[in-house]
Amino acid sequence: MLQGKVLVAQGGGPTAVINQSLVGVVLEGRKHRNVNLVYGALHGVRGIVDEDFVDLTQETTHNLEMVGDTPSSALGSTRDKPDLKYCQEIFKVLKAHDIRYFFYIGGNDSSDTVRIVAEEARKADHPIRVVHIPKTIDNDVVLNDHTPGFPSAARFVVQAVLGANLDNRSLPGVYIGVVMGRHAGFLTAAAALGKKFPDDGPHMIYLPERTFRVESFLSDVKNAMDRYGRCVVAVSEGIHDESGQPVVTRLAKEIERDAHGNVQLSGTGALAELLTDAVKTKLGISRVRGDTFGYLQRSFIGCVSDVDQREAREVGEKAVQYAMYGDSNGSVTIERTGYYSVDYKLVPLESVAGKTRTMPDEFIAPNGTDVTDAFRLYLRPLLGKGLPDAFRLRPNRVAKILKA
Amino acid sequence: MLQGKVLVAQGGGPTAVINQSLVGVVLEGRKHRNVNLVYGALHGVRGIVDEDFVDLTQETTHNLEMVGDTPSSALGSTRDKPDLKYCQEIFKVLKAHDIRYFFYIGGNDSSDTVRIVAEEARKADHPIRVVHIPKTIDNDVVLNDHTPGFPSAARFVVQAVLGANLDNRSLPGVYIGVVMGRHAGFLTAAAALGKKFPDDGPHMIYLPERTFRVESFLSDVKNAMDRYGRCVVAVSEGIHDESGQPVVTRLAKEIERDAHGNVQLSGTGALAELLTDAVKTKLGISRVRGDTFGYLQRSFIGCVSDVDQREAREVGEKAVQYAMYGDSNGSVTIERTGYYSVDYKLVPLESVAGKTRTMPDEFIAPNGTDVTDAFRLYLRPLLGKGLPDAFRLRPNRVAKILKA
Repeated sequence: MLQGKVLVAQGGGPTAVINQSLVGVVLEGRKHRNVNLVYGALHGVRGIVDEDFVDLTQETTHNLEMVGDTPSSALGSTRDKPDLKYCQEIFKVLKAHDIRYFFYIGGNDSSDTVRIVAEEARKADHPIRVVHIPKTIDNDVVLNDHTPGFPSAARFVVQAVLGANLDNRSLPGVYIGVVMGRHAGFLTAAAALGKKFPDDGPHMIYLPERTFRVESFLSDVKNAMDRYGRCVVAVSEGIHDESGQPVVTRLAKEIERDAHGNVQLSGTGALAELLTDAVKTKLGISRVRGDTFGYLQRSFIGCVSDVDQREAREVGEKAVQYAMYGDSNGSVTIERTGYYSVDYKLVPLESVAGKTRTMPDEFIAPNGTDVTDAFRLYLRPLLGKGLPDAFRLRPNRVAKILKA
Repeated sequence: MLQGKVLVAQGGGPTAVINQSLVGVVLEGRKHRNVNLVYGALHGVRGIVDEDFVDLTQETTHNLEMVGDTPSSALGSTRDKPDLKYCQEIFKVLKAHDIRYFFYIGGNDSSDTVRIVAEEARKADHPIRVVHIPKTIDNDVVLNDHTPGFPSAARFVVQAVLGANLDNRSLPGVYIGVVMGRHAGFLTAAAALGKKFPDDGPHMIYLPERTFRVESFLSDVKNAMDRYGRCVVAVSEGIHDESGQPVVTRLAKEIERDAHGNVQLSGTGALAELLTDAVKTKLGISRVRGDTFGYLQRSFIGCVSDVDQREAREVGEKAVQYAMYGDSNGSVTIERTGYYSVDYKLVPLESVAGKTRTMPDEFIAPNGTDVTDAFRLYLRPLLGKGLPDAFRLRPNRVAKILKA
């Protein structure tokens, strides 16, 4: 084992459990005698380049546990995507501070960063062990059954859509919920688990893995309204037309033509606005509501999957164990071994870096607007314990007297 | 006591605990020997006029308890606001079905509906007892310390803002959360309880009780950015300018003038879009995000205050007890008797009907963009048990080497 310091950092969008991975690294890292100190870099790779370090060896175990239960990146994050020169800067700092173990918690881009840093270390003959720890609510890291952060975000989407369906049932109309996920539809698809009774919404789900056609969408909404007298829809922010153009851009132009004006596109609520406008104007339905789940789906406190917490903690802990007892750099992955059990593996950084996983066809229903039972089977255990359930009154109808 | 049937209905926007009040009425109503049957009207007053009744005497107690824990109106709701003729129709149906007790769970308009129905019954010499049961997430019913439904919606807002603040701290910028409440700012003000550490957001709160000035808003945002390097804002959807014009309308025109185009106003995300656009264009800040909490704040399942649940149940139960053992119609109110304890009173329907309560001055800080400790003291017990808490790493900074 190398004698020196451990450095851990968090990159990209926060999740509800990304601090569990951080705490997993710190607690395991502090156990090893060859580890002098455990540092954390503030705001990801940016904090490394700027030498903005905190000494996590001086943090209490109890507070670490509390931080582990707190959503969002406790060390701060960054959107910086380092190029070669940036990675060389990172390496210089690691060398100057005698860092011998570097753990980067992030999405698929982050694994490439640690790969290049390791390359620079090799060239400079500075022995270092680097491990990438996966996180992302999009669930788009390859070679993983799923990625820490996704189950809790999925749970939020399930609880949101379950409640929105109840609201829509009470005051019928069209409800459109826009869910995060630019290329992978996993999080939007999770909305399907909010459905309990046969006539419950979501009645349609639109994923970035399938081409979105405004005409089909409007006809689907009309069919649901005819059938149920109401309609609940989950839409991925990343839906696009046959040419790959995002719907948010294309639909804006159509609405523009109708209204002879311009539509403001910037900002996060645009897609929901445009889709509700389309339903109102083209179908003449008056009660149409759109919610963009926005940042709540990744940051809301108090909606977390215990399975996700546990696994996020373990990938952090396993990363340190692989670094200490193993002989190679890599990315920790989650492998499903049973229903429901998992194990963790270390895979080469190159096999994960820069790749994007999307929903496999077997998870998407042939009509393209629903999920399959295979997906339900896949997702349900990830949502964890104590998922709220919705109940209805039984329809013991009373005979009419005046209008009999 | 009158011998006959009990009828219960739910009106207006659903809440997370409105079914607790329903179950309170049904369970208490079924106990009394003078009650032949307990009916529920589907979709509020609309269901009464249409004779759309279900027999709740034939519902299992266990399922009623499960329904009580489920958000949104289990009987369905309506936006109908009955006029005199509508109320006369209601009365005809009540009479035809031998309804002797009518309980209407709703906002301040609903109390006026039951008042007129009682008036018609009196004219027709048909003895009936009517009681209004309060609910609203806006907390705007007069003579109540607070209204069932508000505490759970407030809890959602607290948890949302608490999480959004953590997200914003991790990836700094400007975050604007738009909260429901057209005239009363209680729900927006609740965001203040999401603040823990001194530099936490929300850094500003904008209420409909105060005039909103775009220039002050922009200067407040700039000050917060200068001071904290980031800024979290909670805004009520009902903010307006000095003339009472909603900001969503006014700001749209300003942006329009800047962009020489039209802004689509319809739909729910408009205010967030407009405010984020204003910050981007006028202050030149690039990372500006806006979330409209939308329907999630009243329908999200799994975010409920146990205090709210208990009180919503009790106002339903008390309504029946007042109807059975008392000698007058009325509206059940919640009175605070200690810290924290409440009692329930029956007040005349006229004293509640059609009136709107707003935030008292003592709850709003002199600068107009924060709440007072009096408000914190008021709100905290309502949020209930097990409110999630956020923790931070302690800043044990490491000395720089390369940039020392």
